[in-house]
Amino acid sequence: MTETAQTRADAGVLAVLLDGEYAALRARARDFLVEHASFHTEAESLDRDAYRDGVRDLVVAAAAQGLTGSGFPAAYGGGDDFGGNVAAFETLAYGDLSVLVKFGVQFGLFGGAIHQLGTTPHHEAWLADIASARLLGSFAMTETGHGSNVQAIRTTATYDAATGEFVIDTPDDDARKDYIGNAARHAQAAAVFAQLVVDGPDGQPENHGVHALFVPLRDASGATLPGVRIEDCGTKLGLQGVDNGRIWFDGVRVPRTNLLNRYGDVSPDGVYSSPIDNPDRRFFTMLGTLVQGRVCVGGAGITASKVALTIATRYAAERRQFGAAGQPETVLLDYGQHQRRLMPLIARTYALHFAQERLARDFHEVFTAGDATTERRRRALESRAAATKSLATWHATRTIQECREACGGAGYLAVNRFAALKADTDVFTTFEGDNTILLQLVGKGRLTDLKDEFGSLDGVAMARYVGRQAAETLAEKVIARSVIERVRDAARGHDEGEPGGDLLDPAYQLRMLRTREERITGSVARRLKAGMDAGVDPAEVFSRCQHHLLAAASAHAERIVLEALLTKVEAMPAGPERDLLAKVGHLHALSEIERDRAWWMEHGRLSTERAKSVTRAVDTLCRELRDDALTLVDAFGVPEPLLTQEI
Amino acid sequence: MTETAQTRADAGVLAVLLDGEYAALRARARDFLVEHASFHTEAESLDRDAYRDGVRDLVVAAAAQGLTGSGFPAAYGGGDDFGGNVAAFETLAYGDLSVLVKFGVQFGLFGGAIHQLGTTPHHEAWLADIASARLLGSFAMTETGHGSNVQAIRTTATYDAATGEFVIDTPDDDARKDYIGNAARHAQAAAVFAQLVVDGPDGQPENHGVHALFVPLRDASGATLPGVRIEDCGTKLGLQGVDNGRIWFDGVRVPRTNLLNRYGDVSPDGVYSSPIDNPDRRFFTMLGTLVQGRVCVGGAGITASKVALTIATRYAAERRQFGAAGQPETVLLDYGQHQRRLMPLIARTYALHFAQERLARDFHEVFTAGDATTERRRRALESRAAATKSLATWHATRTIQECREACGGAGYLAVNRFAALKADTDVFTTFEGDNTILLQLVGKGRLTDLKDEFGSLDGVAMARYVGRQAAETLAEKVIARSVIERVRDAARGHDEGEPGGDLLDPAYQLRMLRTREERITGSVARRLKAGMDAGVDPAEVFSRCQHHLLAAASAHAERIVLEALLTKVEAMPAGPERDLLAKVGHLHALSEIERDRAWWMEHGRLSTERAKSVTRAVDTLCRELRDDALTLVDAFGVPEPLLTQEI
Repeated sequence: MTETAQTRADAGVLAVLLDGEYAALRARARDFLVEHASFHTEAESLDRDAYRDGVRDLVVAAAAQGLTGSGFPAAYGGGDDFGGNVAAFETLAYGDLSVLVKFGVQFGLFGGAIHQLGTTPHHEAWLADIASARLLGSFAMTETGHGSNVQAIRTTATYDAATGEFVIDTPDDDARKDYIGNAARHAQAAAVFAQLVVDGPDGQPENHGVHALFVPLRDASGATLPGVRIEDCGTKLGLQGVDNGRIWFDGVRVPRTNLLNRYGDVSPDGVYSSPIDNPDRRFFTMLGTLVQGRVCVGGAGITASKVALTIATRYAAERRQFGAAGQPETVLLDYGQHQRRLMPLIARTYALHFAQERLARDFHEVFTAGDATTERRRRALESRAAATKSLATWHATRTIQECREACGGAGYLAVNRFAALKADTDVFTTFEGDNTILLQLVGKGRLTDLKDEFGSLDGVAMARYVGRQAAETLAEKVIARSVIERVRDAARGHDEGEPGGDLLDPAYQLRMLRTREERITGSVARRLKAGMDAGVDPAEVFSRCQHHLLAAASAHAERIVLEALLTKVEAMPAGPERDLLAKVGHLHALSEIERDRAWWMEHGRLSTERAKSVTRAVDTLCRELRDDALTLVDAFGVPEPLLTQEI
Repeated sequence: MTETAQTRADAGVLAVLLDGEYAALRARARDFLVEHASFHTEAESLDRDAYRDGVRDLVVAAAAQGLTGSGFPAAYGGGDDFGGNVAAFETLAYGDLSVLVKFGVQFGLFGGAIHQLGTTPHHEAWLADIASARLLGSFAMTETGHGSNVQAIRTTATYDAATGEFVIDTPDDDARKDYIGNAARHAQAAAVFAQLVVDGPDGQPENHGVHALFVPLRDASGATLPGVRIEDCGTKLGLQGVDNGRIWFDGVRVPRTNLLNRYGDVSPDGVYSSPIDNPDRRFFTMLGTLVQGRVCVGGAGITASKVALTIATRYAAERRQFGAAGQPETVLLDYGQHQRRLMPLIARTYALHFAQERLARDFHEVFTAGDATTERRRRALESRAAATKSLATWHATRTIQECREACGGAGYLAVNRFAALKADTDVFTTFEGDNTILLQLVGKGRLTDLKDEFGSLDGVAMARYVGRQAAETLAEKVIARSVIERVRDAARGHDEGEPGGDLLDPAYQLRMLRTREERITGSVARRLKAGMDAGVDPAEVFSRCQHHLLAAASAHAERIVLEALLTKVEAMPAGPERDLLAKVGHLHALSEIERDRAWWMEHGRLSTERAKSVTRAVDTLCRELRDDALTLVDAFGVPEPLLTQEI
């Protein structure tokens, strides 16, 4: 190991780096959490309704402090700042996650749908009230029978030209809206997704696909409106402070103008029109405008991981157990296995943090550009959001579990926070897009890129293409020239056979991950093509290649996460903090290479001796980082009043 | 794939195989659960105290039906049947896990301590009342400051010769008893573990190490006795129906005869005596008698995995999502990735089931033999219990998580059981021995075996020895001769270099796992020896090798689990059930080889081409087993009334 810090890295300096450009907003969000730090403890003694009302009150309070409107237009009390919205959400995730999810439903999903799918009259009518939480709402997309496959939902909105209204109907229980946040108790209205049915010129009903409508649910007294039936989803694994519900519609009528008509409209006399002719493209464009939820949930997963790691690392630095006779017992963090459990998770949390920062910046840029952005940039953003969200939320599940176990019985007590962290974050892996489905989208997107370019799935050309794509993406960004050059030189010199280079060379690490990505993507493309060429049933071909496709997607996701980390480190000024994060980068990269080292061996990219040296390097890095463990978690900046656990 | 079932395997036949020799007792336990199936639903509406009282009532009811006393002597209402106790515990784990854990605390831990550490007068005084649940008690071992390192607990029991009493004291908050089940509300007494202090001949107090005493906690009205202070541990991650508490003792006096004196006694005039002179050996012998808890918890983890897999597999066989246009959507179980998620977990559950069956039989035999058993057999049992418990409980955590995610949002609703399964089983990985510590014990035990044999840690001799050990263990048992011979022949022919043999040959699979076990054990021994020889601080040497030592222990544990599965399949009569379980065995073995295939490649035991063929074989097996998935989970025999989930 070549880096030796001259002086110790400072947690404060790292914290500034992590908070980034939204430091001021994050500070305000932290102040808000500190102000309400006692809420979670108090909530324990409340019954469910009172807890939920308390959660709602906090959401309203956050709105009053201006923490909720960053993403809305300034004209309606917002900040015209999409990135700010993500930063606020990520930071509020240090606190009670029911509050966070309720916040997300109200401002991100419900407000986001009105904002992105609606047009000026809708914004005028509702956005100011939504941003201030005077109008509470739901996002009614998922149905019992259809979660991932939104295009197949079965709620209908049928246009009645005679009255100029849409009539919303739930055909059967399988089509009831389900798991809808805010619905069971507080929502006054909802953005309801339904198949839009309009009579065609021949008088026959025509389905124009999924659209969203603004539908009032409750009157001022809180009673459900005629035709609306709502049930509580009952006790959940976590997030008990969110009032998830089921909704049935029976002939519910709303004015024609309640259709959120940015991507599809119906004239008073019943003629459908849309700026996007292709129904599939229209559908995916509409869904794409709602990517914010995905961006936010991944960020929340990373924040939750930071809380768990802060608790477990501080415990490990204090707790003693076993040791030589006559000596004080040994601190847990001095055990090699304990270092092996915690340090790679800390390193990966840093990597994901910077990947998330990059994602949030792309999101901000694309949405700020609005219609001026390109289709290609939007698609790249959606792919990046899906990849980052999957990795971040699976990381949260794994990290919180490992940290709980690393705190033993103490970790099992609710007072030490793991109970809520574990239960509340559990759904992150399957809501706002099931992680498996999201990775599949990433994988399919990679294949589409190839096919668009070549008109066919030719492996060799493809692999070359993917390599170039990656280099271009790098080049577009702020990564220092030196790394790009090193990567390119290295790619030229070592494209085949045993790669040389120092294990601790970031260019080597990145090249390893890119090689894997290219090769797996190319080979799954070849397999799919061979299956189709052979005339096998496409569903069967897909089923057989699905695991492989997901491996391609994961490989892509891992590469962009590492790239984000290395780019960040490269841009840091020299000093002990950069030295420390460089080491964190090594640990993250080599842990990933160690985890999947079989792949590189199988593909002639790693000798068995070198594979063993990767394992040794991970051991050494874990040990070397031990003395900086507290610095690394202190830099996460979890507000201290939220860390008043007993252990 | 060579096996093709002529007719389909029958779930009923498999169920009989799984229930094994305790089928009748398991049937009674299932009846009990069915009778009380509504309890968990009702419990949701109860406040915490009422829920806990309900749990206690069920424990008492189970005792009344004779489900709780199998392990106790017949003279006190028991069945003289240690194995029966484990079978009842495993089966009751299909139901509410708070009931199960309370059951374990009362009959296994509290009753077990009186039974195993006490002598006839103690049995006469208390066992009948414990077996019938007339006397409820706690097992007060763990302290806030010491969980894993029990030998360092700091509660004291000081002998007062003047009154013929022991005086129990908690020196400070770090030494309070913590997480003690049954303590916060119901226990009338406890088996309290404390350092036994007796004045020596010179009048100076002497510490004789950890011993257990019977200590009354509450009077008939339920009030705590003088000198006893008890607090509730508060809300936990799960198991809210168990009243865990903290206990402080301040000068609490109990008669001298309350010392559970099987392994250490104090005469009325204050002279300490023990049948075991060496204090360390005495301590570990005492702990060893309490191995039942570990045996039971591993079994419960397997049962919980069965419940989760039954729910997720049935859901996957019904739920449709996505598919070709104009076609019915595709059933989840037809997706390659979904098969990849569920099938290896089902296979591993079968493997662990048979490993647990073997463990329970060993436990029964060793404890039935009592003092007639050998030190070596006891040590082997403890190692097997530690290995099986670690693998089984980590498997439960992983399986329940994967199944929850595989059911999406529906999996997040409490009504579908994953919430309770996840929360209640979470602590299994760290109680009754932290899994990491347990695996460490397994690893150290392997090294001790080597050292005892050779007086030194010589790698080559060791590896040969370990191989022989394994063969002997096999030979001792009922495994069919054919497998032993195949394994031995194979070991002779292919001890070095690329192994030949069919991937679907059980002898090949077992040889792969044994090779790994021998090599890792040998190499960690060499590293430890080299470090010590070089004069490095032993704690530092251990810390650096700890991860490696745990890998050796895991490799051992994986080998004995596979061996149990293969032995079972080998003994089955020919037929579709055997064909099916043979395939399950292949999937389990090859999944493990796939997971860690890097190791075999690094050690020259697997070519890269063969490694890829392992992955292909796993893919194929997952697909081939798809149509038997429901049969395999139906055979688990989860009582249907406990599966009334909505999904």
